[in-house]
Amino acid sequence: MIDAKSISTDLKAVREQSPLVHNITNYVVMNNTANALLAVGASPVMAHAPEEVADMIQIASALVINMGTLSRHWVDAMLLAGKAARGKGIPVVFDPVGVGATPYRNEVAAQILEQCRPDIIRGNGSEIMALANTKTRTKGVDSIMTSRSALDSAKELASQNGAVVVISGPEDLITDGTHVHTIKNGSLLMPKVTGMGCTATALTGAFAAVNSDALKAAAHAMAVMGIAGELATKKSSGPGSLQLQFIDMLYQLSEADIAQIFLP
Amino acid sequence: MIDAKSISTDLKAVREQSPLVHNITNYVVMNNTANALLAVGASPVMAHAPEEVADMIQIASALVINMGTLSRHWVDAMLLAGKAARGKGIPVVFDPVGVGATPYRNEVAAQILEQCRPDIIRGNGSEIMALANTKTRTKGVDSIMTSRSALDSAKELASQNGAVVVISGPEDLITDGTHVHTIKNGSLLMPKVTGMGCTATALTGAFAAVNSDALKAAAHAMAVMGIAGELATKKSSGPGSLQLQFIDMLYQLSEADIAQIFLP
Amino acid sequence: MIDAKSISTDLKAVREQSPLVHNITNYVVMNNTANALLAVGASPVMAHAPEEVADMIQIASALVINMGTLSRHWVDAMLLAGKAARGKGIPVVFDPVGVGATPYRNEVAAQILEQCRPDIIRGNGSEIMALANTKTRTKGVDSIMTSRSALDSAKELASQNGAVVVISGPEDLITDGTHVHTIKNGSLLMPKVTGMGCTATALTGAFAAVNSDALKAAAHAMAVMGIAGELATKKSSGPGSLQLQFIDMLYQLSEADIAQIFLP
Repeated sequence: MIDAKSISTDLKAVREQSPLVHNITNYVVMNNTANALLAVGASPVMAHAPEEVADMIQIASALVINMGTLSRHWVDAMLLAGKAARGKGIPVVFDPVGVGATPYRNEVAAQILEQCRPDIIRGNGSEIMALANTKTRTKGVDSIMTSRSALDSAKELASQNGAVVVISGPEDLITDGTHVHTIKNGSLLMPKVTGMGCTATALTGAFAAVNSDALKAAAHAMAVMGIAGELATKKSSGPGSLQLQFIDMLYQLSEADIAQIFLP
Repeated sequence: MIDAKSISTDLKAVREQSPLVHNITNYVVMNNTANALLAVGASPVMAHAPEEVADMIQIASALVINMGTLSRHWVDAMLLAGKAARGKGIPVVFDPVGVGATPYRNEVAAQILEQCRPDIIRGNGSEIMALANTKTRTKGVDSIMTSRSALDSAKELASQNGAVVVISGPEDLITDGTHVHTIKNGSLLMPKVTGMGCTATALTGAFAAVNSDALKAAAHAMAVMGIAGELATKKSSGPGSLQLQFIDMLYQLSEADIAQIFLP
Repeated sequence: MIDAKSISTDLKAVREQSPLVHNITNYVVMNNTANALLAVGASPVMAHAPEEVADMIQIASALVINMGTLSRHWVDAMLLAGKAARGKGIPVVFDPVGVGATPYRNEVAAQILEQCRPDIIRGNGSEIMALANTKTRTKGVDSIMTSRSALDSAKELASQNGAVVVISGPEDLITDGTHVHTIKNGSLLMPKVTGMGCTATALTGAFAAVNSDALKAAAHAMAVMGIAGELATKKSSGPGSLQLQFIDMLYQLSEADIAQIFLP
């Protein structure tokens, strides 16, 4: 069960163990991602040279692959790192940013699914639907949809890949193909800050590093994300202040905050 | 005519249509650029792989090319995307960051002018002067100058390229070679935040996506930039807070703010 | 001697001369680095194309090489720029981020030491120890240590390379192999903001551009870093606000602030 207590327990574990999370992510969010991981208590490392990613995996506790700004050498590094992570047995979290928008993104996403076999996949509803269909056809960027309407795709994707799938949105849905957890925290201002989804993926890497139950780890990460975002929004007068307040809140977040704000 | 009403009309159009602006820009400003576009109501996408830029253009409403941090593969992508944008007929906005500083920048800028045929070019006075002279000789980084002293170069550049040229500075000048609009809003603290010029270019992309009159679109974007910057400066105690307040202000900016602050 | 007066004198020189600092640095911190250089009064430029780095050096007053996010073409550019800077006689400052973590990082760091011959090297205790040993063996990421315990390595590294070596930490130690300066300012929140070390390295580039005594320049930069960080921390409720307040404080920092806060 996901409750305030289980969330706090994992958050405490992240802060105590400070897992090293290896990120191969996009240029837009690297600073935010590193700061969010530091603020939550983890240790970020960013490295993408094919010459070193497999070595970096040897000292890492989780790998986060985010395909926001793709290019050939980066894809090479993602695949190398993913295979090394599989070999070492650390969790791999995948963020298929923009899948469905171009054939290239679909191809790369399919390669990552197949070769890196991620434990957890996180995207918005459109991305999860596009990814579930990536082998058969390209859908383009779908129109806006509710998380709920992408749930069947998420379950199918989870079952086919033996992965936990997270759909971010006003409601976050987390499924392993059978069970579904729902996280209702968050705010409507959060999508106005670039990379909030990427941050959620990175935090998921930190939680997966301390909790081997991928379904719970992902749900806990999304809960911390939503609770911190909701509290930070109350102190913000726009997306600029939210970006700052969110980092402060991740850093400060207490067991009492979680108990008070978590929506079961 | 550029007035408070025409500015508000375009801002409203950006917020309602939320145009997808495809940015091929520099590493320093990507996060700011994406956040500014989100805050003003547009949708940013960053993609630079030659494998996908032409496909991304198919779903975009404007292309912004910024050469702040150049390298070979990125230039390839800029040219491919620019040609695809020309083919599709969406506006292309070009920011020749640092042109004049090295021969390589001059070559790349000349290639972009020739192959992508931008609708709008935005730079500071030194860059516009260097760009106007890029085919005949390299000038290096010019000494500081007023926008006014670069106006002849801007007009020449505009006429030669059939483009609107924007000179940013304490006074912004926007010209199509014949007409000149002047925007007097802004603050002296704004140049102390890195990438404010790049943000202006990106916002110009959003406004060009909703107003096919490039001269007006560029003037409106610069006005929104200056007004938001001026209001944000009043709440700031340095460039750190200005970066945040500027994003909040872009998000909040009302018709009343514009009517009150715009300097015709 | 390093005292409040000598620190203020160099800070004033940076603000008056506004030296152009050429950074070849990592993706995570580029925005922060540029903003910190602007806030302290310097002029940042980021350029990494092998086609132009040597030309950019011709207009620069210092070169900062930071190997946070490595890849082959970037290393090529670092070496080209470093040699051009040596040829021109401007200071080269090197930040061996993550050296010791992978064999590739060790190789690259050794190449930079040998080919670029940096005037100043700045890292944390683990990095300085790993770098001092990079030619003989790979140490991996060392456990946390005090700056003091890495001092012997720093002195050895300084002597072998004819460089000033800075160890950042709760206490900053700055040595040329013989003399040692200690800077005690700073706060425990600073390491929770990503890239604070990278910022210290970039500021060191600005100070080295205005003071040819590398030992003093480095000590002054670390003092300004620590003082601004300490003052900014007092206004911060977490690492998000510290990132902003630090930039504001660099911008505002007065002679009186330095006189009051500097810990000799």
